[in-house]
Amino acid sequence: MRLRNNPKAYEIMEENADLVILKPEEHKGHYHDIFEINQPLYIEIGMGKGDFIYQNALKHPENNYIGIEKFPSVLAAAINKINKNQSLPNLKLMHFDAIELENVFENGEIDHLFLNFSDPWPKKRHAKRRLTSSAFLDVYRRLLKKDGVIEFKTDNRGLFEYSLQSVTENNYHLDYVSLDLHNSPEADDNIMTEYERKFSVNGPIYKMIISDCKE
Amino acid sequence: MRLRNNPKAYEIMEENADLVILKPEEHKGHYHDIFEINQPLYIEIGMGKGDFIYQNALKHPENNYIGIEKFPSVLAAAINKINKNQSLPNLKLMHFDAIELENVFENGEIDHLFLNFSDPWPKKRHAKRRLTSSAFLDVYRRLLKKDGVIEFKTDNRGLFEYSLQSVTENNYHLDYVSLDLHNSPEADDNIMTEYERKFSVNGPIYKMIISDCKE
Ligand SMILES: C[S@@+](CC[C@H](N)C(=O)[O-])C[C@H]1O[C@@H](n2cnc3c(N)ncnc32)[C@H](O)[C@@H]1O
Ligand SMILES: C[S@@+](CC[C@H](N)C(=O)[O-])C[C@H]1O[C@@H](n2cnc3c(N)ncnc32)[C@H](O)[C@@H]1O
Repeated sequence: MRLRNNPKAYEIMEENADLVILKPEEHKGHYHDIFEINQPLYIEIGMGKGDFIYQNALKHPENNYIGIEKFPSVLAAAINKINKNQSLPNLKLMHFDAIELENVFENGEIDHLFLNFSDPWPKKRHAKRRLTSSAFLDVYRRLLKKDGVIEFKTDNRGLFEYSLQSVTENNYHLDYVSLDLHNSPEADDNIMTEYERKFSVNGPIYKMIISDCKE
Repeated sequence: MRLRNNPKAYEIMEENADLVILKPEEHKGHYHDIFEINQPLYIEIGMGKGDFIYQNALKHPENNYIGIEKFPSVLAAAINKINKNQSLPNLKLMHFDAIELENVFENGEIDHLFLNFSDPWPKKRHAKRRLTSSAFLDVYRRLLKKDGVIEFKTDNRGLFEYSLQSVTENNYHLDYVSLDLHNSPEADDNIMTEYERKFSVNGPIYKMIISDCKE
């Protein structure tokens, strides 16, 4: 989701310091302080323009949500979209690359993680950048609470096949899997992402929910 | 694969005692005795009319093959089909229900197991009959040699989703997975089954190869 580079992106972030957490590292281990209510923390990595996380936050006031996006221009677009809607006390945005996750969150701080239509990085030599690689699954394992789960959706067959192998190699539980989400019983409760709306005409949407059984 | 019940099915089996192993239990632990050459043992459970296993045996004289089928009429049809072709010293058939596997094979006796288009048993209360249920995966684990693998293909999405969960719960490795085999690089080497030819027009063929890491 590359937008034309928006030179005002950083300005827009700073003007929206109520919505955007400008210095994430400073809140490590204390994310409940920045929300009105101390309640479960849901994170989306690579939220794009934020449709999905906004809809979730609206539907579930009983959770706190943080959307993460690495491109400033995309984050700026998300801010502008959200500002056109009702503002939500349980939704914040952050600008950083997932590679920094452990500098931003404390072990066991996250309840629930969403990965939606993550970049597929189809070349083998880029496999480490995939957000379901072993290295990332290890990080998530540490950052997630006991009983924490990861929900992952994609239309990219290669990425989903890779991810199935990756989660089994890394001893995650496959709590749920659908190989055609929109034609599954769970379709009714599905909140679509922007990419999902655009690309589900081309083929099935794959989804998995995974968890780690911590002792 | 229900054929009209063939009253001559047992007769046909007995007339073909070179191809059909009539009393499987008697060979438990000694399957190499019934083949000309002592070489790896490949089994297909639910072979139907045997196209797939015949093609495999023809292509791989370096392995021994046994096809298993529970319905006498279907087995009789397989015999008749095979007899129309070149007979193969490395191919035998057996008539029994997979539920009997441990009475027929010794632990560690099988090198390779094929499950192709196994009956889906879609109702939850029939889940135990699915050939990828926990109970069956446990049996396979015992019967397979160290480094033994299971190859499973199906067009049935529900059965494949169930199987993915079942193999991960039962700590198998997912060595390979394709969510659209016929559009995968591996399509070239794929030997099609009768069902596969018929039903792949309706949607993708799913395939997994799994193994157990025995110490
Ligand atoms: C294909 S888009 C999907 C956007 C949105 N989740 C959806 O489904 O509509 C992937 C998004 O993830 C962001 N992204 C990719 N890798 C990232 C990373 N390592 N850290 C943070 N964001 C990332 C990209 O900038 C892009 O906006
Ligand atoms: C849907 S057909 C597929 C046949 C063949 N594998 C193919 O792909 O063309 C399933 C076959 O498995 C056989 N079968 C089902 N359950 C079985 C069991 N428990 N033991 C042995 N055979 C079984 C059925 O009788 C049937 O012939």
